[in-house]
Amino acid sequence: MTVLTFKHFVSADQVTPTDALTLIERAEAFKHGESRQFANPIYVSNLFFENSTRTHTSFEMAESKLGLSVISFDPTHSSVSKGETLSDTIKTLSAIGVNLAVIRHPQSDYYRPLLDASSTAILNAGDGAGQHPSQMMLDLMTIHEHFGHFTGLKVGIVGDLAHSRVARSDMTLLKQLGATVMFSGPRAWYTEDFAQAGPYVEIDDLMPQVDVLMLLRVQLERLDATTRAAFTATDYHQTYGVTLERAKQLQPQAIIMHPAPVNRDVELASELVESPQSRIFTQMHNGVFMRMAMLEAVIDANHF
Amino acid sequence: MTVLTFKHFVSADQVTPTDALTLIERAEAFKHGESRQFANPIYVSNLFFENSTRTHTSFEMAESKLGLSVISFDPTHSSVSKGETLSDTIKTLSAIGVNLAVIRHPQSDYYRPLLDASSTAILNAGDGAGQHPSQMMLDLMTIHEHFGHFTGLKVGIVGDLAHSRVARSDMTLLKQLGATVMFSGPRAWYTEDFAQAGPYVEIDDLMPQVDVLMLLRVQLERLDATTRAAFTATDYHQTYGVTLERAKQLQPQAIIMHPAPVNRDVELASELVESPQSRIFTQMHNGVFMRMAMLEAVIDANHF
Amino acid sequence: MTVLTFKHFVSADQVTPTDALTLIERAEAFKHGESRQFANPIYVSNLFFENSTRTHTSFEMAESKLGLSVISFDPTHSSVSKGETLSDTIKTLSAIGVNLAVIRHPQSDYYRPLLDASSTAILNAGDGAGQHPSQMMLDLMTIHEHFGHFTGLKVGIVGDLAHSRVARSDMTLLKQLGATVMFSGPRAWYTEDFAQAGPYVEIDDLMPQVDVLMLLRVQLERLDATTRAAFTATDYHQTYGVTLERAKQLQPQAIIMHPAPVNRDVELASELVESPQSRIFTQMHNGVFMRMAMLEAVIDANHF
Repeated sequence: MTVLTFKHFVSADQVTPTDALTLIERAEAFKHGESRQFANPIYVSNLFFENSTRTHTSFEMAESKLGLSVISFDPTHSSVSKGETLSDTIKTLSAIGVNLAVIRHPQSDYYRPLLDASSTAILNAGDGAGQHPSQMMLDLMTIHEHFGHFTGLKVGIVGDLAHSRVARSDMTLLKQLGATVMFSGPRAWYTEDFAQAGPYVEIDDLMPQVDVLMLLRVQLERLDATTRAAFTATDYHQTYGVTLERAKQLQPQAIIMHPAPVNRDVELASELVESPQSRIFTQMHNGVFMRMAMLEAVIDANHF
Repeated sequence: MTVLTFKHFVSADQVTPTDALTLIERAEAFKHGESRQFANPIYVSNLFFENSTRTHTSFEMAESKLGLSVISFDPTHSSVSKGETLSDTIKTLSAIGVNLAVIRHPQSDYYRPLLDASSTAILNAGDGAGQHPSQMMLDLMTIHEHFGHFTGLKVGIVGDLAHSRVARSDMTLLKQLGATVMFSGPRAWYTEDFAQAGPYVEIDDLMPQVDVLMLLRVQLERLDATTRAAFTATDYHQTYGVTLERAKQLQPQAIIMHPAPVNRDVELASELVESPQSRIFTQMHNGVFMRMAMLEAVIDANHF
Repeated sequence: MTVLTFKHFVSADQVTPTDALTLIERAEAFKHGESRQFANPIYVSNLFFENSTRTHTSFEMAESKLGLSVISFDPTHSSVSKGETLSDTIKTLSAIGVNLAVIRHPQSDYYRPLLDASSTAILNAGDGAGQHPSQMMLDLMTIHEHFGHFTGLKVGIVGDLAHSRVARSDMTLLKQLGATVMFSGPRAWYTEDFAQAGPYVEIDDLMPQVDVLMLLRVQLERLDATTRAAFTATDYHQTYGVTLERAKQLQPQAIIMHPAPVNRDVELASELVESPQSRIFTQMHNGVFMRMAMLEAVIDANHF
């Protein structure tokens, strides 16, 4: 097996195409029942400074399946409320013996000051509008599971690009792995960095072309008040969303993905969430096994 | 042993008298040291959307004693705060691999849309003013432990019937098991559904008649502002409560029960909470073993 | 090995000099890899009614290393919010089967009504401005680890004495073990009880004398509004704090301690937090092993 060297796992930029394929292979092995035991107890804390059901619970499950010892940490009841910096918090956890910190934080690049602060390894579970490597990796796994490869696949990424950790993480590696990407949704969200990665295509032109339709959540809680007031769910659905009508234009082999939670009847008609072409709950299921592979890679790289 | 078939365990209506006796027998076995191991790891999440010490901690203890793997879930930090429905949350937990969800929620019948939503089994830990089957079952266990049977027992249920999950759950099964029920407390709370189950009796007439005096918590936090303002603890205690004086009218074999937390000197004189006739802390103790029996019944019915 | 008899472990007053040395010896053994297993499962709950990273996480780690079963309890979601007393909460946990409760609470002496309330043992993790025995014990361990003894050591305690649990806990036992204590910082905080334990010394006179410089956190969140407004971090640092300049006056064998979280550049120049003479992160590291020793002492004394 290829050896992965993730002292920390914080950014999609760290992941080479070879790494991605190695992690996918390992995650698929876990999905098919492989288990892993470690010689020493491994202590992990999950620090979620933003709300999350899926990511938090999925990491807890992955940790449980790997037999890690979870040391509970609640940011809202921590000394962070006494003004302690995140860096001092991690140094504290390190002194206490926490080997690995899984962190979600609203600030982009929050992890940079932490990388050399202590011996505790950092696994980034999402930073602001920046990186979300575990979501990227479970997306790639879900595509690979269906098609068996990436070369030549057409991936349409639709929606709130500007606020999406997921879009940025995914597009880079998808291209390196041989897929082409295109974008749709409100043009205001199609900013320069996306324009460099692939073309903007009207939603009705996009539907019949893609192998993978990757929808993004319209993150209402991140919109400013004016935008939110102007925004109606029905308008969005009719103009940019995947209606029942539009879904009929998909090719038979195409799949629908969404990082969830889905705004039903906004990004996607509610009936399609659990349709045969949807892989939305498969993504969540795969996420546990991918996170096992990522945790294992970090643990092994650190020789805990 | 009788086989129980609780795919979900959500309502007192599911429990036949035979089921109740089987669960009590199993809970008593756990209390006397019997243990149970499962072939596969069982993943359980506790979703408490309402505050609770007793019920939440008691389920955590029961799960620990059964060796279940608890995947932590905090509703206040979950995507429910992004507007996700409870049904989508459960589907998510199911995709992640959670076998069993123990849920307490303020909305009556919250569980109905969940029963066919996914493969995750639901154990209802209380819904609004509706059902609270684990409290019912631990009440029945505590009565059975003392008397050895139910036939012919006279059970007086006293207090805030209107807001009580417990009263509704208990009265149905107690009658099926051969007990008679009667009610006391403020007449406004003695609504039609209780009138069909048993008579209203003034508290001073009730005391010398009963084998079991089942007090209910006056749920101040559920009263409307007007009622709460009019209500004084002292008045309630003198008019409807179990004062030291009234307690002397109890027969020697009678027991006092209360689901707790007790409003001391409101429903019950403080000195009586730990009196020889009180079974209040016994109820809490029994609750752990009854919840073990209920969890086991659901796990076995689902062949996890 | 000396037998310790801590049915509860709530106050520094309980700890004789012999006990302290026995606990330190045991904690050092744990630090050097010794482990301990118990014949029966031990159930512990951590009740933190005040925010804390270090103490809470450190106890969780100690419990994990001892193989205890942690039954989770969140005060903010408990029946305490329905007005239940702490005493009734502990009786409830006791009835549910919790053997040991680790409690941090803002009210001084909160633990007194709990000691005879139930069979659950209490380990005090800090009460208001009162006791904080596990911090005291890890401080003593850290001093002992460096010097190998206490006799004749000069310990300077500097800062917010009035609001400090730590200062009161430490000074008593340090003196019994043969050390001398002196105090510095704002004179208003040098109250009568400290005056009886040792002299007040200006910070610049203190620096060259001490073997141990024990800094206290200026607890901004406990100051009243007027004091907080008058208080500036820069003033404090220049007048009472350990500046880079002042630190040069320390003897070479002297060590700097602080219970953390440190207000960087208030009590201590930021650069000194991780300097060679600082033992601040060592204290956190030692805390885990000392808490193992304290938990073990309570468990053994109760024959759980």
